[in-house]
Amino acid sequence: MKKSYKNPEPGDHVEIISDGDIKNQGILLDSHDRGVLLLKLNNGYNIGLKKEDIKEIKVLEKKKKVEIKEDKKLSGKKPIIDFYLTGGTISSKLDPSTGGVKWLIDSKELFDIYPEIFEIADIRVKSPFMKASENMDGKDWVKLTKLIEKSLNDTQVKGIIVSHGTDFLHYTASALGFMIGKLNKPVVLTYSQRSSDRGSSDSRMNLACSAYTALSDIAEVVLVGHANSNDDYCYILQGNKARKMHTSRRDAFRPINSTPIAKVWPNGDLEMLRNKINKRNKEKVKVDGVFHDKIALIKFYPGQNPDILEYYRKKGYRGLIIEMSGLGHVLTQGKNNWIPKLKEVIKKGMLVYATSQTLYGRLDPYVYSPGRKLEELGVVFLGDMLSETAFTKLGWILAHKNWRGSVATKQKMLENINHEFNYRLSNEFLN
Amino acid sequence: MKKSYKNPEPGDHVEIISDGDIKNQGILLDSHDRGVLLLKLNNGYNIGLKKEDIKEIKVLEKKKKVEIKEDKKLSGKKPIIDFYLTGGTISSKLDPSTGGVKWLIDSKELFDIYPEIFEIADIRVKSPFMKASENMDGKDWVKLTKLIEKSLNDTQVKGIIVSHGTDFLHYTASALGFMIGKLNKPVVLTYSQRSSDRGSSDSRMNLACSAYTALSDIAEVVLVGHANSNDDYCYILQGNKARKMHTSRRDAFRPINSTPIAKVWPNGDLEMLRNKINKRNKEKVKVDGVFHDKIALIKFYPGQNPDILEYYRKKGYRGLIIEMSGLGHVLTQGKNNWIPKLKEVIKKGMLVYATSQTLYGRLDPYVYSPGRKLEELGVVFLGDMLSETAFTKLGWILAHKNWRGSVATKQKMLENINHEFNYRLSNEFLN
Repeated sequence: MKKSYKNPEPGDHVEIISDGDIKNQGILLDSHDRGVLLLKLNNGYNIGLKKEDIKEIKVLEKKKKVEIKEDKKLSGKKPIIDFYLTGGTISSKLDPSTGGVKWLIDSKELFDIYPEIFEIADIRVKSPFMKASENMDGKDWVKLTKLIEKSLNDTQVKGIIVSHGTDFLHYTASALGFMIGKLNKPVVLTYSQRSSDRGSSDSRMNLACSAYTALSDIAEVVLVGHANSNDDYCYILQGNKARKMHTSRRDAFRPINSTPIAKVWPNGDLEMLRNKINKRNKEKVKVDGVFHDKIALIKFYPGQNPDILEYYRKKGYRGLIIEMSGLGHVLTQGKNNWIPKLKEVIKKGMLVYATSQTLYGRLDPYVYSPGRKLEELGVVFLGDMLSETAFTKLGWILAHKNWRGSVATKQKMLENINHEFNYRLSNEFLN
Repeated sequence: MKKSYKNPEPGDHVEIISDGDIKNQGILLDSHDRGVLLLKLNNGYNIGLKKEDIKEIKVLEKKKKVEIKEDKKLSGKKPIIDFYLTGGTISSKLDPSTGGVKWLIDSKELFDIYPEIFEIADIRVKSPFMKASENMDGKDWVKLTKLIEKSLNDTQVKGIIVSHGTDFLHYTASALGFMIGKLNKPVVLTYSQRSSDRGSSDSRMNLACSAYTALSDIAEVVLVGHANSNDDYCYILQGNKARKMHTSRRDAFRPINSTPIAKVWPNGDLEMLRNKINKRNKEKVKVDGVFHDKIALIKFYPGQNPDILEYYRKKGYRGLIIEMSGLGHVLTQGKNNWIPKLKEVIKKGMLVYATSQTLYGRLDPYVYSPGRKLEELGVVFLGDMLSETAFTKLGWILAHKNWRGSVATKQKMLENINHEFNYRLSNEFLN
């Protein structure tokens, strides 16, 4: 079955012969560049080939008319993973007709691009919403939590995967951890930095790693993705102690003040790097999916006018996370002295929590007097907790009537609910 | 000359014999803990010895009555370094009488704690102000710039050291770079994470490294300090591409989207790691020390209400640096959609610049349509520039009448004035 190179369709298994008799075999993909053919090689990598260099394209096998594994059509032989598609690069592909981005919204589309994970498990695809992560907020975290509860309490389901945009994935990961509480099986958040139809897409490996993590005994909300720039293995990271630290690298997510929980390879090998984790169990899960969104995050900068505190108070905000200096200081001299304004808003009921803008390390307000002064005023210092985690924790706590008083909120904020505090900080956390 | 352990004074060279006949020799320091004697060992490390364990203290030599090298009493045999004390941990010592912190304010006090750098050069100590770095702002950067100008144009002076608090040191470093412009000799900012009378103080080595850097040919504004957790060598970092990344580590400052300029050892050895740097020369320097402080930095968080933009506009702010998502996005859907508010404030004259909250990597607004949309509205994307550098650059630019129009400001903000953009980003910048 020979055709000219104009006839092959995306999905076909082809051999492409380029100038110099260079042969490449693989699955033809949609390409957004009209001058380039995109090929997923048999080894899993994608390459782009200039049309002008192509001498011949042989269609080895037409696109499989796959039997889509819908909810009702599970093999019954493999463990079941509930797969929540929520948007982001991992759930998108370029639309060659418009040059824009299309979401992958059902199992068929997912299968077309990522057939491998359907070999590992019976995948039940669910799509509660499709959003770039910058458009998600507390309401989405609550919605997702409630859906995940069903999967957690469905004894048929072995584990859960959530595919998500990268930019604010660490917010969702920490929010889900607080809202879901003690887990009985893995909840795995994953991502990709390059869309599935790019040559260097990382999604294929991240999904395989995620599937094996979802089948593992690690009953925690975790973030799974490339451990380094090679395509060799992934890290399983604690969801509330990780952060996106690079705009484009495949290993953009880094543990902060924490170590990875485990390494996982795309062939299913898994090496634990920590002992104390919550194990798979048969308990029923009762989620606590609520969020109070009248809270704000402020990154302090030199010379900043403290009127911003009053602005948030007047707007009815209940709590602030302030990213202060490394030890936990803000401006405490001169005309923009924050002390009087902090005193005033705290007196009027604002809850003020401090994190560090260095990201790594732990606040230590006791070294110098300004820190001690802030604590006297009622600023609560959050040790080594990330600002992002502090934000989701505060929003979750304030949505509880019983915890809304300043004393109760403080007590809950300082409670190590989901290992968001690490009492044994190692210098090694920052390489 | 034997005395009981109550008689030795700080500054004396002593031998302390503890239980088990353990002997330690060194210089006795002020200790803020009444139960502990603090000793600077001959190898440079400080140790604390419990008084209850001490059997005997021999005073080997009384404190040197040093001839302070004041401005008028320079040796005349060594190169001159102008040393600006501005505050911070490096310029502080614990006051054992109050438990509080005292500033080191003159050459005598500096010499008492750091005699080594007085061996390397003739040190002229200047103290324009003493502040923790969170209390510094644009006015301080301008003041410091103008003083440094004198040192740069004083042909007697070989180099300049500025000792500074760590927390917002990277703001000062980038601000000085823009304000001073093309340099003729080194301007070295340095710091310590532990105060000089703590056992693990890092200041001694940082100062020696800084002194040798100030005598080198690297005519740039640089930040010098521990390269790692050992006390072996320092990095010389580009002042506007570095950031404090850990609350307490000695090597807290990390190059971001950049490599170190050089390694420098406390014995004066120096290994260049980059070729293209500005070399020592005999040009006269004309600084441009101005700063416009009606600018703000906003770190975007999920669900954030865009009214904050209007707040700053109403308060008369001229420009905003917004730390967006990795690619350069904010919320662009639903009731908190930022698009209409951004459009409105930009129309009314607000200048809006985007940086990435991942810190590492480069914004790429062209991947998805929301980024392209923001650019159409007039948001200017700052590539791989740090938020902190963007802030000082914008404040400096806006203080110039000729550059205040939105087109002129944008043009200057995108100009690579002081290597604040790195066009060749390497993945290796994030380890």
